[in-house]
Amino acid sequence: MSTSFSVLDHLHMANALRLAERAAYTARPNPMVGCVIAHGERVVGQGWHQRAGGPHAEVFALREAGSEARGATAYVTLEPCAHYGRTPPCALALIDAGVSRVVAAMRDPFPKVDGGGFDLLREAGIEVAEGLMAAQARELNKGFLSRVERGRPWLRVKLAASLDGRTAMADGSSKWITGPAAREDVQHWRARAGAILTGADTVIADDPMLTVRLAGTEVMPPLRVVLDSRLRSLECSRVREGGAPTLYLHDAMISPPDAADAAFASVAVRHGRLDLGAVLALLAERGINEVHTEAGATLAGALLRGGWVDELLLYQAPTLLGDSGRPLLAGLGIDTMDQQRRLRVVDQRQVGEDLRLLLRP
Amino acid sequence: MSTSFSVLDHLHMANALRLAERAAYTARPNPMVGCVIAHGERVVGQGWHQRAGGPHAEVFALREAGSEARGATAYVTLEPCAHYGRTPPCALALIDAGVSRVVAAMRDPFPKVDGGGFDLLREAGIEVAEGLMAAQARELNKGFLSRVERGRPWLRVKLAASLDGRTAMADGSSKWITGPAAREDVQHWRARAGAILTGADTVIADDPMLTVRLAGTEVMPPLRVVLDSRLRSLECSRVREGGAPTLYLHDAMISPPDAADAAFASVAVRHGRLDLGAVLALLAERGINEVHTEAGATLAGALLRGGWVDELLLYQAPTLLGDSGRPLLAGLGIDTMDQQRRLRVVDQRQVGEDLRLLLRP
Repeated sequence: MSTSFSVLDHLHMANALRLAERAAYTARPNPMVGCVIAHGERVVGQGWHQRAGGPHAEVFALREAGSEARGATAYVTLEPCAHYGRTPPCALALIDAGVSRVVAAMRDPFPKVDGGGFDLLREAGIEVAEGLMAAQARELNKGFLSRVERGRPWLRVKLAASLDGRTAMADGSSKWITGPAAREDVQHWRARAGAILTGADTVIADDPMLTVRLAGTEVMPPLRVVLDSRLRSLECSRVREGGAPTLYLHDAMISPPDAADAAFASVAVRHGRLDLGAVLALLAERGINEVHTEAGATLAGALLRGGWVDELLLYQAPTLLGDSGRPLLAGLGIDTMDQQRRLRVVDQRQVGEDLRLLLRP
Repeated sequence: MSTSFSVLDHLHMANALRLAERAAYTARPNPMVGCVIAHGERVVGQGWHQRAGGPHAEVFALREAGSEARGATAYVTLEPCAHYGRTPPCALALIDAGVSRVVAAMRDPFPKVDGGGFDLLREAGIEVAEGLMAAQARELNKGFLSRVERGRPWLRVKLAASLDGRTAMADGSSKWITGPAAREDVQHWRARAGAILTGADTVIADDPMLTVRLAGTEVMPPLRVVLDSRLRSLECSRVREGGAPTLYLHDAMISPPDAADAAFASVAVRHGRLDLGAVLALLAERGINEVHTEAGATLAGALLRGGWVDELLLYQAPTLLGDSGRPLLAGLGIDTMDQQRRLRVVDQRQVGEDLRLLLRP
């Protein structure tokens, strides 16, 4: 279906996308959705989905529009839902309000929707157009889409290194390679994620808390996930403090302790290590859309080697640590140039004195 | 002396700086100099110093201005010369032409000038103002200024690496980490330099030609300098081909061969390696303003460790080569975080698919 959209359509949809993103830290496991209701260039209602269990974007926008919704166009960043979940179907609400046209950025691949919302609207005689700014809408909900379409979360690996690709000195000391602006920036990436993934070695070496520290911002605390097949890291307790949940994933051969401050789940083991595909499948089943990884060279390297990495967030400090420093990634298993892992630079910018690269395979 | 300059003054000086830079590939060992002669906003003459032995910038500009130079202001990026060299003193030419004001970006520290040009002008009753856009003028001639003021050339080290700081696979293969745009870009940096410095190991490993390949651009071929204390690399002859001069620097204990296609000079040896300070002093004595280094991790590391590096030109390919790849720099001798070599990002940009960073200590 080829539909042509006007400049005004683009303007309203861009606004709806911006509204949707306001819930980047709170909507999960639901997708972020924004809605704008307009007559021509006059906006009569707007809304976004703030949190799971709460009203959908369309409901907020319709409330604001009131009787002005009649005959208006509704712009939604995702297909309106067609099923009775924790809230009634938005498609019905749009029909009841009397909107005459619905423009959606994309179809919702969630099996209970998947075109059903569009069908309801069309059956009610409403004009439906889909695909406006679809690329931006997919980018917005890449985590949700990855979980629904691939059965695994979108996986980001955050790394910080010197220009010569070293993350620490030979003795492990690394405070601080990057500056305060980069460390603050990382908080926003953590806040977007449903889970922050790390390994037992990092917990033992750094005893990190892995919470989100963003003063004055509402954030649903991400689940901290520790890959620890033999539960070696339990003595380091900071990863269970700070008011966010913690999940240890371990070998089924190991019995987890009774602990009030953490959950445990077993995952299949392959070649002596937790099966990373099984880890990601488990996290998807638990509603994790986006995983933010902060781990050492070994786990980061294993994720890359396994092809599980969707994006690399690399902070580069303008410094040299020398060739005795610790490598950025270990165990990539690259021996010849044709095995190199080429990436695409999605974004590059300066963050304080450091450089930040966002890369995708 | 605090002088205030008008917007118009800045405009003409900026233009003179741009004119000067046209000779970036040809003026050496002389500094790049540009000159604009103007009445108010009306430009009556402009010129730049094209090559050593040829007329200076002021001469070209005065020729163009003719009788209109009388009563005009002359903008020069460097103090007009006061001595009889290969050409008569420009200060006298400006006096003879009857200009009423001379604005110079900076004093020429060259001992035969060093304020003498300004003195001549002032004695002739011409108003002289100096210091307009001095930082830009110093940046333009950082090579010349380094040679005159520090007795050594401005030293740039060019490196190309993956994001994980690797320059090649363990077996040395590295073609090509960076893309064609980056390799083309390097030609311009080579062309700016009076000398391209490399080491015997690089010559033996890669048999590089190290000439400037810029079609349709006039370039004075840079001197190729091979650090080869025991003259081990002479069998690799490409570095003596291609129409540019070649200089081998070696230990005085080794007798150089009779060779028509290369020159030889001995340099002091320390701890079994050529003394890098002595190398740079020798190149400065031979009129080299700017050295562009393309070498392996060992020589680049030794230059950095010795504090000889003025800027690092780092091309980063968006790829990962893994921790068995060759390191960017060797022998920096960094064991603790407080020994790290912090750099300042002077410029960052995308070149083709690669990233280019210009960094200074």
